[in-house]
Amino acid sequence: MEGTLNLVGAGLIVIGGGLGLGQIGGKAMEAIARQPEAAGKIQTAMIIIGALLEGLAFGALILGS
Amino acid sequence: MEGTLNLVGAGLIVIGGGLGLGQIGGKAMEAIARQPEAAGKIQTAMIIIGALLEGLAFGALILGS
Amino acid sequence: MEGTLNLVGAGLIVIGGGLGLGQIGGKAMEAIARQPEAAGKIQTAMIIIGALLEGLAFGALILGS
Amino acid sequence: MEGTLNLVGAGLIVIGGGLGLGQIGGKAMEAIARQPEAAGKIQTAMIIIGALLEGLAFGALILGS
Amino acid sequence: MEGTLNLVGAGLIVIGGGLGLGQIGGKAMEAIARQPEAAGKIQTAMIIIGALLEGLAFGALILGS
Amino acid sequence: MEGTLNLVGAGLIVIGGGLGLGQIGGKAMEAIARQPEAAGKIQTAMIIIGALLEGLAFGALILGS
Amino acid sequence: MEGTLNLVGAGLIVIGGGLGLGQIGGKAMEAIARQPEAAGKIQTAMIIIGALLEGLAFGALILGS
Amino acid sequence: MEGTLNLVGAGLIVIGGGLGLGQIGGKAMEAIARQPEAAGKIQTAMIIIGALLEGLAFGALILGS
Amino acid sequence: MEGTLNLVGAGLIVIGGGLGLGQIGGKAMEAIARQPEAAGKIQTAMIIIGALLEGLAFGALILGS
Amino acid sequence: MEGTLNLVGAGLIVIGGGLGLGQIGGKAMEAIARQPEAAGKIQTAMIIIGALLEGLAFGALILGS
Amino acid sequence: MEGTLNLVGAGLIVIGGGLGLGQIGGKAMEAIARQPEAAGKIQTAMIIIGALLEGLAFGALILGS
Amino acid sequence: MEGTLNLVGAGLIVIGGGLGLGQIGGKAMEAIARQPEAAGKIQTAMIIIGALLEGLAFGALILGS
Amino acid sequence: MEGTLNLVGAGLIVIGGGLGLGQIGGKAMEAIARQPEAAGKIQTAMIIIGALLEGLAFGALILGS
Amino acid sequence: MEGTLNLVGAGLIVIGGGLGLGQIGGKAMEAIARQPEAAGKIQTAMIIIGALLEGLAFGALILGS
Repeated sequence: MEGTLNLVGAGLIVIGGGLGLGQIGGKAMEAIARQPEAAGKIQTAMIIIGALLEGLAFGALILGS
Repeated sequence: MEGTLNLVGAGLIVIGGGLGLGQIGGKAMEAIARQPEAAGKIQTAMIIIGALLEGLAFGALILGS
Repeated sequence: MEGTLNLVGAGLIVIGGGLGLGQIGGKAMEAIARQPEAAGKIQTAMIIIGALLEGLAFGALILGS
Repeated sequence: MEGTLNLVGAGLIVIGGGLGLGQIGGKAMEAIARQPEAAGKIQTAMIIIGALLEGLAFGALILGS
Repeated sequence: MEGTLNLVGAGLIVIGGGLGLGQIGGKAMEAIARQPEAAGKIQTAMIIIGALLEGLAFGALILGS
Repeated sequence: MEGTLNLVGAGLIVIGGGLGLGQIGGKAMEAIARQPEAAGKIQTAMIIIGALLEGLAFGALILGS
Repeated sequence: MEGTLNLVGAGLIVIGGGLGLGQIGGKAMEAIARQPEAAGKIQTAMIIIGALLEGLAFGALILGS
Repeated sequence: MEGTLNLVGAGLIVIGGGLGLGQIGGKAMEAIARQPEAAGKIQTAMIIIGALLEGLAFGALILGS
Repeated sequence: MEGTLNLVGAGLIVIGGGLGLGQIGGKAMEAIARQPEAAGKIQTAMIIIGALLEGLAFGALILGS
Repeated sequence: MEGTLNLVGAGLIVIGGGLGLGQIGGKAMEAIARQPEAAGKIQTAMIIIGALLEGLAFGALILGS
Repeated sequence: MEGTLNLVGAGLIVIGGGLGLGQIGGKAMEAIARQPEAAGKIQTAMIIIGALLEGLAFGALILGS
Repeated sequence: MEGTLNLVGAGLIVIGGGLGLGQIGGKAMEAIARQPEAAGKIQTAMIIIGALLEGLAFGALILGS
Repeated sequence: MEGTLNLVGAGLIVIGGGLGLGQIGGKAMEAIARQPEAAGKIQTAMIIIGALLEGLAFGALILGS
Repeated sequence: MEGTLNLVGAGLIVIGGGLGLGQIGGKAMEAIARQPEAAGKIQTAMIIIGALLEGLAFGALILGS
């Protein structure tokens, strides 16, 4: 039962990550399409906030298991 | 019971990935349709954030099982 | 109980794939209708991101079972 | 209990397929109504992405059972 | 317990079919109202995608039971 | 327990039918109000897709019980 | 336990009917307010689709119990 | 346990009725505010569809208990 | 256990009533703000449909307990 | 177990009341902001429908416990 | 088990209160921003309906425990 | 089991508080951005309704535990 | 079982906090983008309401455990 | 069972974090696209509120486990 419930928990982590990264990435592309000349600034902010969430997800994956 | 609950967990991972990639991909296409000349920049951002999420999903699939 | 719960897990994978592919495909068609002359670029992006999700879904189906 | 839970899993697969195909088909018709002269391109894309999802659903139905 | 859980699973299949066919049918009518002269093309696409979903639902109903 | 769970399953079927027929019927009326002169075509499409869903629901009700 | 779970199932049927009839009725009134002179056609369509759903609900109520 | 689960089922019936009647009634008032001179026709349609739903709810309440 | 589950069921009834009455009342006020001179007609319709729902809720509360 | 499940049921009643009163109160304020000179009529309607819901909630709280 | 389930019930009450008060308060502020000179009337209505909900929540908290 | 379920209940309280305070705070900022000169009145209303909800949450936290 | 359910409860607290802070922070940024010269007032309000929610979350985390 | 339920709890924390950070980050990018010259102020606010939520998530991860 151990190796299996692990995967359920990992699935919840990916749902969290997918909701967050999807929202971030989707809005980033909308923003680039609206202001193509500000693409640099937007991508910087996208990577900062994306890395923050990615770090939380991997931290939870390692600390929790 | 092991081989089966595994698949439920894998299903949750795919739900997370589908929500995220669907949002990213859908918005990317909207953006390309709005600014066809910025298609390069948008596709770059789409692949960066998509790879980030794909990596999280496969990492969870391997670490969790 | 094994062969049955398997199908429930497979069902969750298809829900994830359906949510993602539906969003991607639906937005792609909206985009083509808005910019018919950019149909090539849009279809390229649609297939890249669709393949990414399809690969994740089949990977999870095979690794998880 | 086997023949019954099977049907529940199959139901989840159809929910996934219904969400995806409904979104794809609905948007395709919206797109045709907006650009009737691009109906060919739109129907091509609709069948590609629809076949992708249909394949995933039947694959899961057969592999999972 | 067998004959009863069967009906629950069948109910899930109808929910999936209802969500998909409702979305397809609803959008088709919106499209016809917007472009009455393109009613033929729209109805063709509606029947293709509707048959695809209907086939999946009946396939799941028969394979799963 | 048999006669009762049956009704729960039947309830799920009606939820599926209600979601689908409500969406179809509601959009059909919106469409008639927008294009009163196309009421014939719209009602034809409404009955086709409605019959498709109705058939699925009754089929599931009879096959599943 | 029999007489009670029955009522839960009946409740699900009414939820399904309420979602469908509410959508149909609500849109019908919106449509009459938009095109008062087409009230006859709209009411005809409303009763057809409403009867279809009502029949499904009562059929499920009687077949399922 | 009998007298109590009964109330849970009755609660589900009222949720169904509330969703439907709320949608019907709310749209009816919107419609009257948009076309005050068509208040008669709207109220007629409101009562027809409302009675249909009310009848379903009370039928389920009596048949199910 | 009897006196307690009763309250859960009663809670579901109030949720149903709250969803319905909130929708009815909220739309009624929007309507009065849009057409202050039609406040009489709107309030009449609000009370008819509100009484219908209130009657269903109290009927379920008394019949179900 | 009695004193505790009671509180869960009471919580459901407050959720119902909160959904309803929030919708009513929120729309009432929107309406006052749109038509400040009709504030009297709006507040009258708000209190009628609010009292109706409040009565249902307290009735359920007392009858159900 | 008593002291703990109590807190779950209390949590549901706060969810109900939060949904209601958030809707009321949020709309009130929108309304003040739209009609700053009607801030008095709006705040009066906000406090009436807020007190109604607050009373229901505390009543349920005390009666239910 | 006591110390743990407590935390689940506390989590539900924070969900309630987060939904309410987020709605209140988010709308307050929207309102300030729309009418910067009415920032004082808006902040007063924000603190009144926020304190009301905060009090309910802490009251439930202390009374319920 | 103690150390684990604790984490589930803590997860619910973070969900509550994330919903609230996300709404507050997201609206704050929208507001700054709309009125850059009012950034000071908006940030003050953001920190007040954010601290209120943060305090509730940490209080629940400490009191509940 | 300990190491596994831990991961479920951690998954809930990441869902909370993903909902919050996704909302914050997505709105931040929208805001930068609307007011590129205010990118500094927006990024400052984004990092303040993001750090607040990140701190809550890690605090819950460490305190809860």
